[in-house]
Amino acid sequence: MSDERPEIAGLTIGILGGTGDQGKGLARRFALAGHRVLIGSRDAARAAQAAATLGEDLPVRGAANAEVAAGADVVIVAVPWDGHRAILESLRAELAGKIVVDCVNPLGFDKQGAFALEVPEGSAAQQAAAVLTGSRVVAAFHHVSAVSLLDPAVAELDLDVLVLGDDRAATDTVQELASRIPGVRGVYGGRLRNARQVEAFTANLISINRRYKAHAGLRITDV
Amino acid sequence: MSDERPEIAGLTIGILGGTGDQGKGLARRFALAGHRVLIGSRDAARAAQAAATLGEDLPVRGAANAEVAAGADVVIVAVPWDGHRAILESLRAELAGKIVVDCVNPLGFDKQGAFALEVPEGSAAQQAAAVLTGSRVVAAFHHVSAVSLLDPAVAELDLDVLVLGDDRAATDTVQELASRIPGVRGVYGGRLRNARQVEAFTANLISINRRYKAHAGLRITDV
Repeated sequence: MSDERPEIAGLTIGILGGTGDQGKGLARRFALAGHRVLIGSRDAARAAQAAATLGEDLPVRGAANAEVAAGADVVIVAVPWDGHRAILESLRAELAGKIVVDCVNPLGFDKQGAFALEVPEGSAAQQAAAVLTGSRVVAAFHHVSAVSLLDPAVAELDLDVLVLGDDRAATDTVQELASRIPGVRGVYGGRLRNARQVEAFTANLISINRRYKAHAGLRITDV
Repeated sequence: MSDERPEIAGLTIGILGGTGDQGKGLARRFALAGHRVLIGSRDAARAAQAAATLGEDLPVRGAANAEVAAGADVVIVAVPWDGHRAILESLRAELAGKIVVDCVNPLGFDKQGAFALEVPEGSAAQQAAAVLTGSRVVAAFHHVSAVSLLDPAVAELDLDVLVLGDDRAATDTVQELASRIPGVRGVYGGRLRNARQVEAFTANLISINRRYKAHAGLRITDV
């Protein structure tokens, strides 16, 4: 790790697709860590409703995706894979210059469980980078259990968040952000070109969860 | 985990490509656990030499690949990705009916580090399954550090070995085998169709090792 940890205390976190469980769960944990959080949705009213379910005592507000993208310092992309490219294309201007954290897992499901989908750009994160040429795209938060994030009984999570990207200052910032979630370490995981297997590994975690009746996560040893 | 752990004490382990560091390291650890081990190479003399370097007190013998494939109960494929398909095609008959454990990582390297190569079948393990239609193909041991396996100062490793496959009895056996290495757990990691990201993740571990000056491994939490 570098000795200087980036100062992130004052950052406002935006979450596109923040009305899903993953988005809401991350919103809850970042708000608990003291960040102002903006939950985004295509429908501003639904976003406000999702923010309200997290409790009035947390600094979480809902708004339309474009407003969230414009108003946040760091923007997390937690939309379904289905609308991933379209939503990013629609927010290019608002996201310019910002750290954009893609946590989308392109997965399919059949009766044998989950499997990785082919992505023309290689991975969801690389697709985001291809669309958002003016943003600083980072991949992270793929393996965090939404159930654990949302569960008030879970004081500490037990996993490392792998943070991938080609912009060192941006990955450092996102590692620090990940480490704000109790029990979580943000660990550098490589360049964006190696994001595909991190996204796809979520399919393995789903298999592991099924076999062991667990909410499995990863830890990196010797780091 | 299933309550009945498979009985593996008497199994002879063959290692194709056993003269490389990964193969020699696995040979050493399985021999230390009491297994008879056969190290294979195209060149029987080189195989014998590799076996000798592991010490005369260990039950390790070198032989030509075909002899190893025929003589072992479980055969580990630790050959370079380059000759992977050809060597398996040449050993189809010897490997029929056996558990074949593929631990090959199809990786490329450039000045930015390691990256995953495209494999027509999806992964090295799926290529092995496509070639060895009469064998029980399992994927495992991708992330084990050869350096740690070979280092007499390392009494215990600190990682889980992900074991993937579509044959439950075979994956159970290989999980048990992995757990014979001190400090290692064999954890079921999904079906063969999800092997690609486990192989490719080795590129991320290489990036992590470089950044943190580590011999990084994975642990699965909540399992």
